[in-house]
Amino acid sequence: MSDRVEKDSIGSHTVPETAYYGIQTLRALENFPITGTPVHAELFIALAHVKKAATRANLAMRWMPEQIAQAIVAASEEVIDGKLAEQFVVDAIQGGAGTSINMNMNEVLANRALELMGHSRGDYFHCNPNNHVNMSQSTNDAVPTALRIAAYLLTIKLLDTMRELQSEFVHKAAQLDDVIKMGRTHLQDAVPIRMGQEFGAYAKVLGRDIERVERAAQNLLSVNMGATAVGTGLNASVSYIEKVVSFMAEDLGIPLRSADDLVDATQNTDAYTELSGSLKVCAMNMSKICNDIRMMASGPKVGLAEITLPARQPGSSIMPGKVNPVMAEVVNQVAFQVMGNDHTICMASEAGQFELNVMGPVIAFNLLQSLKIMRNSFDVFRKYLLEGLEANRERNREYVDRSFGIVTALNPHLGYDVAAQLVKEAMATGLSIKEIILERGLLTQDEMDEILDPVQMTTPGIAGERLLRDQG
Amino acid sequence: MSDRVEKDSIGSHTVPETAYYGIQTLRALENFPITGTPVHAELFIALAHVKKAATRANLAMRWMPEQIAQAIVAASEEVIDGKLAEQFVVDAIQGGAGTSINMNMNEVLANRALELMGHSRGDYFHCNPNNHVNMSQSTNDAVPTALRIAAYLLTIKLLDTMRELQSEFVHKAAQLDDVIKMGRTHLQDAVPIRMGQEFGAYAKVLGRDIERVERAAQNLLSVNMGATAVGTGLNASVSYIEKVVSFMAEDLGIPLRSADDLVDATQNTDAYTELSGSLKVCAMNMSKICNDIRMMASGPKVGLAEITLPARQPGSSIMPGKVNPVMAEVVNQVAFQVMGNDHTICMASEAGQFELNVMGPVIAFNLLQSLKIMRNSFDVFRKYLLEGLEANRERNREYVDRSFGIVTALNPHLGYDVAAQLVKEAMATGLSIKEIILERGLLTQDEMDEILDPVQMTTPGIAGERLLRDQG
Amino acid sequence: MSDRVEKDSIGSHTVPETAYYGIQTLRALENFPITGTPVHAELFIALAHVKKAATRANLAMRWMPEQIAQAIVAASEEVIDGKLAEQFVVDAIQGGAGTSINMNMNEVLANRALELMGHSRGDYFHCNPNNHVNMSQSTNDAVPTALRIAAYLLTIKLLDTMRELQSEFVHKAAQLDDVIKMGRTHLQDAVPIRMGQEFGAYAKVLGRDIERVERAAQNLLSVNMGATAVGTGLNASVSYIEKVVSFMAEDLGIPLRSADDLVDATQNTDAYTELSGSLKVCAMNMSKICNDIRMMASGPKVGLAEITLPARQPGSSIMPGKVNPVMAEVVNQVAFQVMGNDHTICMASEAGQFELNVMGPVIAFNLLQSLKIMRNSFDVFRKYLLEGLEANRERNREYVDRSFGIVTALNPHLGYDVAAQLVKEAMATGLSIKEIILERGLLTQDEMDEILDPVQMTTPGIAGERLLRDQG
Amino acid sequence: MSDRVEKDSIGSHTVPETAYYGIQTLRALENFPITGTPVHAELFIALAHVKKAATRANLAMRWMPEQIAQAIVAASEEVIDGKLAEQFVVDAIQGGAGTSINMNMNEVLANRALELMGHSRGDYFHCNPNNHVNMSQSTNDAVPTALRIAAYLLTIKLLDTMRELQSEFVHKAAQLDDVIKMGRTHLQDAVPIRMGQEFGAYAKVLGRDIERVERAAQNLLSVNMGATAVGTGLNASVSYIEKVVSFMAEDLGIPLRSADDLVDATQNTDAYTELSGSLKVCAMNMSKICNDIRMMASGPKVGLAEITLPARQPGSSIMPGKVNPVMAEVVNQVAFQVMGNDHTICMASEAGQFELNVMGPVIAFNLLQSLKIMRNSFDVFRKYLLEGLEANRERNREYVDRSFGIVTALNPHLGYDVAAQLVKEAMATGLSIKEIILERGLLTQDEMDEILDPVQMTTPGIAGERLLRDQG
Repeated sequence: MSDRVEKDSIGSHTVPETAYYGIQTLRALENFPITGTPVHAELFIALAHVKKAATRANLAMRWMPEQIAQAIVAASEEVIDGKLAEQFVVDAIQGGAGTSINMNMNEVLANRALELMGHSRGDYFHCNPNNHVNMSQSTNDAVPTALRIAAYLLTIKLLDTMRELQSEFVHKAAQLDDVIKMGRTHLQDAVPIRMGQEFGAYAKVLGRDIERVERAAQNLLSVNMGATAVGTGLNASVSYIEKVVSFMAEDLGIPLRSADDLVDATQNTDAYTELSGSLKVCAMNMSKICNDIRMMASGPKVGLAEITLPARQPGSSIMPGKVNPVMAEVVNQVAFQVMGNDHTICMASEAGQFELNVMGPVIAFNLLQSLKIMRNSFDVFRKYLLEGLEANRERNREYVDRSFGIVTALNPHLGYDVAAQLVKEAMATGLSIKEIILERGLLTQDEMDEILDPVQMTTPGIAGERLLRDQG
Repeated sequence: MSDRVEKDSIGSHTVPETAYYGIQTLRALENFPITGTPVHAELFIALAHVKKAATRANLAMRWMPEQIAQAIVAASEEVIDGKLAEQFVVDAIQGGAGTSINMNMNEVLANRALELMGHSRGDYFHCNPNNHVNMSQSTNDAVPTALRIAAYLLTIKLLDTMRELQSEFVHKAAQLDDVIKMGRTHLQDAVPIRMGQEFGAYAKVLGRDIERVERAAQNLLSVNMGATAVGTGLNASVSYIEKVVSFMAEDLGIPLRSADDLVDATQNTDAYTELSGSLKVCAMNMSKICNDIRMMASGPKVGLAEITLPARQPGSSIMPGKVNPVMAEVVNQVAFQVMGNDHTICMASEAGQFELNVMGPVIAFNLLQSLKIMRNSFDVFRKYLLEGLEANRERNREYVDRSFGIVTALNPHLGYDVAAQLVKEAMATGLSIKEIILERGLLTQDEMDEILDPVQMTTPGIAGERLLRDQG
Repeated sequence: MSDRVEKDSIGSHTVPETAYYGIQTLRALENFPITGTPVHAELFIALAHVKKAATRANLAMRWMPEQIAQAIVAASEEVIDGKLAEQFVVDAIQGGAGTSINMNMNEVLANRALELMGHSRGDYFHCNPNNHVNMSQSTNDAVPTALRIAAYLLTIKLLDTMRELQSEFVHKAAQLDDVIKMGRTHLQDAVPIRMGQEFGAYAKVLGRDIERVERAAQNLLSVNMGATAVGTGLNASVSYIEKVVSFMAEDLGIPLRSADDLVDATQNTDAYTELSGSLKVCAMNMSKICNDIRMMASGPKVGLAEITLPARQPGSSIMPGKVNPVMAEVVNQVAFQVMGNDHTICMASEAGQFELNVMGPVIAFNLLQSLKIMRNSFDVFRKYLLEGLEANRERNREYVDRSFGIVTALNPHLGYDVAAQLVKEAMATGLSIKEIILERGLLTQDEMDEILDPVQMTTPGIAGERLLRDQG
Repeated sequence: MSDRVEKDSIGSHTVPETAYYGIQTLRALENFPITGTPVHAELFIALAHVKKAATRANLAMRWMPEQIAQAIVAASEEVIDGKLAEQFVVDAIQGGAGTSINMNMNEVLANRALELMGHSRGDYFHCNPNNHVNMSQSTNDAVPTALRIAAYLLTIKLLDTMRELQSEFVHKAAQLDDVIKMGRTHLQDAVPIRMGQEFGAYAKVLGRDIERVERAAQNLLSVNMGATAVGTGLNASVSYIEKVVSFMAEDLGIPLRSADDLVDATQNTDAYTELSGSLKVCAMNMSKICNDIRMMASGPKVGLAEITLPARQPGSSIMPGKVNPVMAEVVNQVAFQVMGNDHTICMASEAGQFELNVMGPVIAFNLLQSLKIMRNSFDVFRKYLLEGLEANRERNREYVDRSFGIVTALNPHLGYDVAAQLVKEAMATGLSIKEIILERGLLTQDEMDEILDPVQMTTPGIAGERLLRDQG
């Protein structure tokens, strides 16, 4: 067999006989050799779902002959099943608002459908990428719909991972709830806290992140299929729109709905910026948590060494025995990537004009990446760091004993200024706070024991409140 | 009267006799001469509410003598009423996690309370900034609580403005619903659309922005009063916490609630990043809308000139008669500012460590600014641009007639390739699409009139679907 | 053959017999399944240069037996020649500051060297990844040095592309210098300008971008080889450092130099942020240029249509005959990507701590991507858009005639207020400015012709200055 | 006296009699009540220089009567001297590309000039804001020229502060050069380093920042005076341009030059983005340094406590005796602000269109703020933190003794794997590395002393290289 020649409104082009894609895909390859990275596979899978549903709707509307429709549906299902993956070749960053993504799919499905019907590839009379596979559609509704589906499905997976991670934080909080340690503000010794409270706080903020991401995912369910070129639905119809959306929802098992304003849904990209924004908030929270963990794990001999992390790999190619908090570091980096991606997505979103935002490809590239790398990194963070994290209990207890932070509990009893004076004196003399109090007769030993109990300091209350009442 | 000398744990300092603030405020002025801009007044007003409620709670707990409490409450109310505003002098960007904000308030209230009780300023034995005004509190709970209140109140105001703006978009959409114009994608002529649909889409996306901001505001209602230094509630008590929150809620008339995890609420700043994120999404949407409006208003003679904006000021110091879309430009700039502010807020949020995020002041500075400039700019945008915006109806109609975009409606009838050929020929010959169709006998005049009706093209449907059925 | 078992300080792991990489690479694969995208190939090539030079230096120092050194050098050269590329498998985002990148290389080279010496893979007694391939090195000097080399080489290529693009802008400026068009400010008609001046300005700003990128590239030439773990040079030596740098410089033909402060060069990442910053400035400039071009090309019938761009692909899957400015759109998106990448790089840079910035991998991932996508997109932009861009001369001339902007030239003669009045009257009556001037007898026809010559208006000068002098 | 009524091309407006500004300033106040913060005073001072020079040039060209020119020059000089400052009232964020800034100045100078000539304010026949004060100028050249001057002057001041800060780092490096401490990578104990090397590295990177900012400042010297509306110089002249630039340069004592392409200089904003970019790189470096310092100063009892910072203010309103690293925290926040400002500036820069970037006001607002807050914060950081910073020498020495990092020096002698084994055993047994080495007879005491000398480890070299040679 030999290469075929295909034509479009611009001219003609030789297409390798083995290719299921056609002339427009080739033009895209020529025009956009940008990143060397193809569009995320998840977007193509979702687009195949879109094509399948549109074809079924076109058939139901009696706009498309049954034989062609069946062939396109069959071809779509192959793509959904992961076949022909190597035929989806257009670059992740491309001009044209995703036209090349759409045409890559249209061409592959048309040629595969032709093949299934017993025709030659390129024999578009029997099944045409534009007239048949793209029937009643525009890039401007098919590709955004696919992006919303792909983003939704990845978000669901991310949420599963976030929930597993949160559970592990909850579990750690319980496990470490009896570890008394020094709380820190400004990186300075503050007052005692339980390590369980710290991990509980991590669980809490992640819980809110989960809610934010869940909420943001809801907007993705509203799709603009049938909007066609500018949202007005030209060349679609109300009945078709109902059908195509319900076919997709049914097939995917997710509650997709038709956007109640297709013009709006075609030009606005806030569903993506909202989702990316919620990912960014989560990324920052996780980065803060990882920073805490890396500081707590600093050492082993001349750092805080409050916790020990599982050793995952030799930490240095030169320093023997060094073990680094690599699973936290990777989450920090993912966080920075997600923040940069959000920036790109936001600028792209702001650049929409009139009826369309043509910057869709770079939005898709970054949004789907953020979803994937957060999921992947949170998963290994949980498995390889959090599950095996252990508190160095003795060290933490010793820190509480050594610190001055407990004087805060003396405020109600001695006043802020006297307490501050005690700290100064302890610093200067090397004596402990307790020694000075006794020496000065500021409190009795019993009073002191009651007031300066670190465990009690970790829950709301005035230590030794009883004593105050007595005084009052 | 002469200046007084005050002392703190660091040393002593001369304080101007006229000053209600004291030594720690002076230290802050010395340490942080950074922006030259004071902390937003709204934050101090909110902090006065916090101090008032805390004092009432301390009184109710019988931790504070009634006379002192009454004096502090009275002083707080003066600040809430806008008095002593010139006494709040600390710089917007400051180290210390807001300690200087808190101490500026503590000192002003203490001295005003002293005055009200008939004592001299600086006579802190009778009312002490730390022991009395700050009783049961830490900077780490008082200031974040104040920030949440200030942000919430400004958000409520912003939401009012957003709703007014959205109403005006809805109103414009109705007013302009019969203006047929050319839709544009890629800045290229696409297919007809009604201007009302465009403004309707603006209303829609702003509606979602309102929902996002409303949701984000909810998190602000959860405050960490009673958390004291690190969230454990040391020197507070459960009963006190209930009281202080309910006093604030009552006073402000907003449904504040005590955070269910005070450790979490003290160290995490996601309430701010979520709110800022929702503001950013809105800012991008509004920037896109303003870009559209500026392009539609381009001209007057050699631009699109689809709409005319009210003239608000001479547009040029050199070009006579020039009128510029200044109200849209200011919203674009506000959008960029909000995006930059979000960036600052995010980096500050990520920089939290252990029990506290010490970057609170820069978060407050940027977050409250974003809320205010969005409100202010949206308000003038609505009044001075949107309300007076008018469509150049004739021009738009002429554009629809002149363009080729209508050929899209021919796809179902003639196929994509034939339609594309028609455009090429029209471009080359200068003939209209309709002339070529008739000349070639592709459609009858009646068929053409039915298919190429621009109004019909603006709603879902296949123009001339009846004709297709007949063929089918 | 069967799989081998390798050991490290953490434990042991089965390694596929076919693998040249070893246990530490496998650990990295297990720990960091993050992006699914490998580290940029350019970084590995550069690292092979580093390894080769280090080995030669170690040999010259007589620290390594000649036979082993020769084998490592030979293996390195194979990698430099593009062989074994599939063995470099670690993920682009990884914890450990690049240790996995370094160990992937150390293991591959060790095993290939073993093979070349006739030993079995994994028989590290004869050539050890750490003791031999990594001799006198640390990840902390080898990987940053490789990143600087890779970034420098890609920057050189980018600069070539930028210079070609600038030349084409210069060429276009000459070609279009006689096209008089209406200048625009605020998207409003301003005063006449030559299209050549516009393209000349594009060339100018790109020229400054070239200078900025050139300057930023200089810092990359300063490498920290010999810094070893923290910059102190432990286990290296002054003589070794001189050798390794000169070997690299010689091999690569670029003027690498040893950083004059190795501690500084090991912990600071400003060479990357400076380069990324210069890329970002360029990206913004190019995005602005692309926005201009897309607006000038808007139409074809109801936009500005001042220029025509080459048709690169059918612009729409639904709108026949539509051609979109896809080559400009792809540059816009690349610009947004580069800006997002810069954000990621900056946050990663800020996150350095003490003697090292462990966020190197995410910096490398984004920096090298920015360099590549800018080059790739600028190249196709030039070839496929700029070279074929044509002015619609007649249209531009007609615009100049139609507009009111020329009244600015009347200021010196009639005053700003009178000129503004003329515009108002022309807008209201539909008369031209010239008609009103004559009607009112404000100027004679001759005076008017002298003052209102659009060509003259495009160079500094007061149109009709002679007339003013006469009056004066 | 009563209020006056002024007119412009839009209509008329009552102006308070006391006001030197006029109708257009009032329109700006009405249109842009956005931030509540006025334009930076430095920009108005610079603009007064521009007006003065333009007037002198207009006089020299004999375009303006001498009496009027002298009055405008005199008025300008008053503004330069800080008078009439309260008359510059327009908001920092405004539409219109700075027209309101320009007109605020034009009106104030016109009215003050009128007054100086004995006329009433508002009697613009004798001195008109547009025809006289703005003669030969446009907002589009006058305001950008003023911004460049203001930015340049502030940059010069910032550079002085940066140099003082760098000197202090150099001084600290010398002072602390004999303090041996543990180097850290990944926050894990690494190998010994001298504290002087760390502070030396801070000095080095700040030195490069100084160079970057110096270079960026150079572009600001190229001004577009005479560009008028779009850069073509309409209503200006070559001779006028030479004069106005040389008058400004002379007056200010800075080497201003006329941009060699005025069209380019009018539409492009890369001078600002380059400068802001260089500030951002510096901000990140300083933030990293401050993070290091805050970690080194962590404690006092349960942190690293390697250094002690001067106490600048009581650190807590609740925790007595607490002292926080507030001067470092404020620099961190300034850094985040500068990064956010850069983001705003970049987005504004990207939004330029055709012959002008109308987003100038928001660029000016953020750029000048960045320059000022960096200067202010670096100054107090140096004075209040760095100068008084002290090393806890004993603590650092103890850390070096306690840590395992010194084993890296054993690599060349015992190999990486044996050294790693030693660390594992030391961790497990609590024995020191040295004890285990001796016990196992791996090295003699003399060999060990030679190899494990921490001071020697802080300079390039193989500890005990002599021993290796002997073995070799």
